[in-house]
Amino acid sequence: MEYSTIVIGDELLIGQVTDTNSGWIARHLTPLGWDPKSVKVIADNADEIFKAIDEAFATTDVVLMTGGLGPTKDDITKATLCRYFGGEMVLNEDVKKNVDAQFKRRGIPMNRLTAGQAMVPSTCRVIQNDVGTAPIMWFERDGKVLVSMPGVPQETQTMMERSVIPQLLKHFHSDLDLEYRTFVVIDYAESALAEKLEDYEKQLPSYIHLAYLPKHGIIRLRLTGAHHDANVIKANMEQQSAQLHRILGNSIIADGDKPLALIVGERLRSLGLTLSTAESCTGGNVAHVITEIAGSSDYFMGSVVSYSNDVKQRVLGVDETILATCGAVSQPVVEQMANGVSHVCRTHCAVATSGVAGPGGGSKDKPVGTVWMAAKVGDIVVSQCMHLPGERCQVIERATNQVLIMLLKLLREME
Amino acid sequence: MEYSTIVIGDELLIGQVTDTNSGWIARHLTPLGWDPKSVKVIADNADEIFKAIDEAFATTDVVLMTGGLGPTKDDITKATLCRYFGGEMVLNEDVKKNVDAQFKRRGIPMNRLTAGQAMVPSTCRVIQNDVGTAPIMWFERDGKVLVSMPGVPQETQTMMERSVIPQLLKHFHSDLDLEYRTFVVIDYAESALAEKLEDYEKQLPSYIHLAYLPKHGIIRLRLTGAHHDANVIKANMEQQSAQLHRILGNSIIADGDKPLALIVGERLRSLGLTLSTAESCTGGNVAHVITEIAGSSDYFMGSVVSYSNDVKQRVLGVDETILATCGAVSQPVVEQMANGVSHVCRTHCAVATSGVAGPGGGSKDKPVGTVWMAAKVGDIVVSQCMHLPGERCQVIERATNQVLIMLLKLLREME
Repeated sequence: MEYSTIVIGDELLIGQVTDTNSGWIARHLTPLGWDPKSVKVIADNADEIFKAIDEAFATTDVVLMTGGLGPTKDDITKATLCRYFGGEMVLNEDVKKNVDAQFKRRGIPMNRLTAGQAMVPSTCRVIQNDVGTAPIMWFERDGKVLVSMPGVPQETQTMMERSVIPQLLKHFHSDLDLEYRTFVVIDYAESALAEKLEDYEKQLPSYIHLAYLPKHGIIRLRLTGAHHDANVIKANMEQQSAQLHRILGNSIIADGDKPLALIVGERLRSLGLTLSTAESCTGGNVAHVITEIAGSSDYFMGSVVSYSNDVKQRVLGVDETILATCGAVSQPVVEQMANGVSHVCRTHCAVATSGVAGPGGGSKDKPVGTVWMAAKVGDIVVSQCMHLPGERCQVIERATNQVLIMLLKLLREME
Repeated sequence: MEYSTIVIGDELLIGQVTDTNSGWIARHLTPLGWDPKSVKVIADNADEIFKAIDEAFATTDVVLMTGGLGPTKDDITKATLCRYFGGEMVLNEDVKKNVDAQFKRRGIPMNRLTAGQAMVPSTCRVIQNDVGTAPIMWFERDGKVLVSMPGVPQETQTMMERSVIPQLLKHFHSDLDLEYRTFVVIDYAESALAEKLEDYEKQLPSYIHLAYLPKHGIIRLRLTGAHHDANVIKANMEQQSAQLHRILGNSIIADGDKPLALIVGERLRSLGLTLSTAESCTGGNVAHVITEIAGSSDYFMGSVVSYSNDVKQRVLGVDETILATCGAVSQPVVEQMANGVSHVCRTHCAVATSGVAGPGGGSKDKPVGTVWMAAKVGDIVVSQCMHLPGERCQVIERATNQVLIMLLKLLREME
């Protein structure tokens, strides 16, 4: 089953907000055998919306639409849907009740603009929005379906799982069985991995496809299998996955599409180890990605972001003379930071970063992108210096990944 | 001048990677009077690419394409461009030299797959990629232009600024003068702000448009003016901006589209104040957004992410009995955290967070989304409790914004 996504919103088109709904939808529908054909981002403009729907229905029978339903915008989107599917704008009492209830719950008075959200095209079936005021609208014509959803990610995502996805599955049923397997790989650059897997790719059956998804020092490998016989596909995916494991060994750090911080967290939990971070150039981002994982408080105790040398010395106990002689971006300092934070936070493991994120602060021996990193497990401390490409934000992101990979490798060696 | 963006990549379409190039391009072209007509995300598939180019050229004379040029994918994209614009694949010596040089610089041996990157359609003009191996290709036909760029954000963004944008401006020239003004607004919900500005919007001249861009407790207002007479537009934009300032007063915390952390940083720098953060539920994200700003080391000294109560007590000096009686998510604890970290990091200002990010950890009195926040300036500490909607990541993001807004309001009151 294929579908198209239309994302409506001036703010998205001009790049002041980034669309995350289309990606979320794809991540949740592809495992169910629903493949995204295209994502089109357009302005809050009646003609653009009308044209986009026409284009989308020309290639797929299902169109998922997000955005264009905020209190200051929904008139354009709804009027266009009304024009496309026919009927007239009518007040929907259930939506009105829902809007009233939402406002009562939040304790803010309802105003005229928000009241307008209860108006919907007579040709749609309303799916009540439990977590917001904008109604979700289901349209049908000639066996094709369009679902219009809010742009607020939390509202669309909650209601997709609760109502929209189940109703879509009920309404359609794909006859092709699909299976997906994702593997998280370290130790390789994309081109080197592609060369290593050249023969493996050649021997893959025609109905199994391998995709490379590299990002910041990690490569996700994704096997997609599509076949009419569920047993054939299951057996072959098993076999090909096992073969991939034989070729790449422990360079595969996880089966499934898991964030690096989750992989680290699972490893720490299974080993019964705790972690703390000491961060200079990553400025708290390592702690942030670790604590984005639900339940991370089981193994993550805390972090000291020692942006100033004063904090490095007094809180982490970095030696003043070493700071003066070697500089903050150096092997001894980053190792002392790792030791210091594991002592302060009383943890078995620690990671530390100190580098030049840029754009300023670079020098001839330590240009922008120079990052010293340390990982500590028990009494063992390892450190390395990397020269990371990109602007400030990329250096921070890459350093965050690299220091977590260092910790994983150290844990791997000790198993 | 209008343009279309085509984003190529299975990984983007299935949502394993989020497209940030199209937004970056829009943010950099709109101020130059180049408006994005649409963004289309498609798979690494020859027919899809061919069709997308046709569609895009049907509505705009300029198509900017990103992605589909990685060493494992570029054959599809290049072959399709060759099919669309004619000609044959030829080895480009300059590209080959560049690829060799890039690899030498990174100290990794060049392999066959990467060598293939030097093959380009004979009908394109190559723009040398100074920061990567994939060549940038400029195609022209019937006065229309397509530029194919890599998917790696840093490569596309660097080369857009360095070469592509200047060459586009040279090649085309729009006769319509455009001006943009963005204002960052706090204190209002979107619908309340829309009501407040209803009369203001009514009196706007037909050639000036107001857009609402709300996100996580902040609303960006964007005035767009388009007119053939540069003087008319400049004068009117000035006047309408001044009017907006009169209506909203100091609820406008910044002119221009600035991240909240930059606004906070500029305020601190101008007041000569330093900042530290004590974070529990935000897990380092407040420190992260602050240190994403270049030069933040001038005013940001550090952070203590006190995820465990042990770290709250020993590093931040939170009272053990208060932790036991009131719990970690409470007013006295978050205020002691703010006081503690400003003492430990020796800063004038501090912010602190302690809450239930979820999905676990909620209770009847403190459900998921309950967050206590404190802001400190000198001897004054203010605190508030908020109930933030959304999943874990949204709660973290919203709490991060809200605590920075608290600090801004406190600084505002003291001015």
